[in-house]
Amino acid sequence: MTDAKYDVLGIGNALFDVLVKADEGFLAAHGMAKGGMALIDETGAAAIYRDMGPAVEMSGGSGANTIVGVASFGARAAYVGKVKDDQIGRMYAHDIRAAGVAFDTKPASDGPATGCCYILVTGDGERTMNTYLGAAQELTPADIDPAQIAAARIIYLEGYLWDPKNAKEAFVKAATIAHQAGRRVALTLSDAFCVDRYRDEFLDLMRKGTVDLIFANETELHSLYQTSDFDTALKQLRQDTRLGVVTRSEKGCVVASKDGVVAVPAFPIAELVDTTGAGDLFAAGFLFGLVREAGHENAGRLGALAAAEIIQHIGARPQVSLKELAQRQGLPV
Amino acid sequence: MTDAKYDVLGIGNALFDVLVKADEGFLAAHGMAKGGMALIDETGAAAIYRDMGPAVEMSGGSGANTIVGVASFGARAAYVGKVKDDQIGRMYAHDIRAAGVAFDTKPASDGPATGCCYILVTGDGERTMNTYLGAAQELTPADIDPAQIAAARIIYLEGYLWDPKNAKEAFVKAATIAHQAGRRVALTLSDAFCVDRYRDEFLDLMRKGTVDLIFANETELHSLYQTSDFDTALKQLRQDTRLGVVTRSEKGCVVASKDGVVAVPAFPIAELVDTTGAGDLFAAGFLFGLVREAGHENAGRLGALAAAEIIQHIGARPQVSLKELAQRQGLPV
Repeated sequence: MTDAKYDVLGIGNALFDVLVKADEGFLAAHGMAKGGMALIDETGAAAIYRDMGPAVEMSGGSGANTIVGVASFGARAAYVGKVKDDQIGRMYAHDIRAAGVAFDTKPASDGPATGCCYILVTGDGERTMNTYLGAAQELTPADIDPAQIAAARIIYLEGYLWDPKNAKEAFVKAATIAHQAGRRVALTLSDAFCVDRYRDEFLDLMRKGTVDLIFANETELHSLYQTSDFDTALKQLRQDTRLGVVTRSEKGCVVASKDGVVAVPAFPIAELVDTTGAGDLFAAGFLFGLVREAGHENAGRLGALAAAEIIQHIGARPQVSLKELAQRQGLPV
Repeated sequence: MTDAKYDVLGIGNALFDVLVKADEGFLAAHGMAKGGMALIDETGAAAIYRDMGPAVEMSGGSGANTIVGVASFGARAAYVGKVKDDQIGRMYAHDIRAAGVAFDTKPASDGPATGCCYILVTGDGERTMNTYLGAAQELTPADIDPAQIAAARIIYLEGYLWDPKNAKEAFVKAATIAHQAGRRVALTLSDAFCVDRYRDEFLDLMRKGTVDLIFANETELHSLYQTSDFDTALKQLRQDTRLGVVTRSEKGCVVASKDGVVAVPAFPIAELVDTTGAGDLFAAGFLFGLVREAGHENAGRLGALAAAEIIQHIGARPQVSLKELAQRQGLPV
């Protein structure tokens, strides 16, 4: 195993977030499942955008948010994701590079526009996402640079990559290269509906060892094992993966491995504003903790800290240096 | 004078805001005058954007922010400003219409992209703006619909309109139509550097009665009369215009007419985050007070309330209903 150039490399759907406050009636009128992520086509996107209020825009995408978080903690990070070379795509590339992340994926020069996620934030802070994949559909195995993958200590992959038509091949290619280079591969289950679409394939990835580390929230875990009993689901997770991290909102997280289960509390917050990016940033802190070999409990605390920062403002990219935040809390950086 | 369809119609440079936190060193390295608005060309925009951190985007433009504020108070509002029919321009049109503002200006189908304002927010909450006018350059008198202008009780114009090449003709055309229809015309001096560029023309507009109401902050007023003495400047303002409203940051505002001078305190805030839009939203509240015939003091208080809302978060568009905010404060709506 050669020296790593990157601590964490993420692969995901590159999406520009369009965030708006909305009420429950808006979700109902548009048939949205609150708290979930639904895929929409261009017509669906136009219908939602037509009806929604004035928005705030910023770069997003689950895996990209995580990677930006990893960089904000001070680790060396890279991202692979597909935008188009349009106005939004250029902003996307600017933002992720300006966050200190290596981003070399060639933008699409034709085809659909850069993907967008229309995010409705209700008064309780919950976010409901509607994703128009756009150019993210164009990610293919050719976008995976074997040398770059092999140069990253951890590869972080989105379950959402199962949605675009060729991205899962890119995913498997990257995981294979990573393992050949002696690296670790992490997967986030992304969303309960996403798990429902690809349950068998995700279980297969875990059981065959294509992925070594699983991130899931409670709902996704229940969806994966089709049970409403947390302990049953956790027991199965421990059988299926070497390391499983389950986030439970205000109840904190649980880190499960063959050695045992560690529970870490959530980090206290002053006000819940917008849950967008909570899971993404939790993963950022946890991955950073792994990179620093800080132990599972500290990794969980770093995850909780980053999640607490992100849910206290609109949008899924950190507004402060997570490194400084962790230092002030006496956490290892 | 026929019944008005709109309470306030604004004309301004339609700009998409790209907001980023920056330190004083960044401003110095790029030769920026802190707190001001500088015009930049495409090359200048590229240089700033290349060096700045990850951003948050939202629709902006001084006059448009004011008009969105007027609509948020519950008044009938319209806006005239030029974007291009590009991704950013379409977001711009969406946002202003979704805020309840009538916006019918035909977007440019070719020429420069929709204009952008790169806004650096320093730790003290001050904003420093760099404007690439882009498609806003293309606003001409042909974009002024006489029937629409005549149908608005107050026309609100930006001093910034003196920067694009043909917008001042649009400005004068609109002011003339408004006066012929028995309406009032308001002008904001926009920026101290802008006043410095067009001092004689602005004084001419005031003294000839092309405008009836002037909004200025203290710095702009001092620049207009080239004096550092506030009382001297205020005395001259009272001679030159029927109604002058001068904002003084945390010292509140002063409403000056031939009848006298009324001082209104600033509205208390919990935390200053970003001054972007403070003057724009003050004007929104004041104009709304005029429309409701609430008296100068109440108009000043409505202005102070809207300014207080806007400076406690990033960006120059209100995040809550200003109508509800005013109701909770017992102010007239």
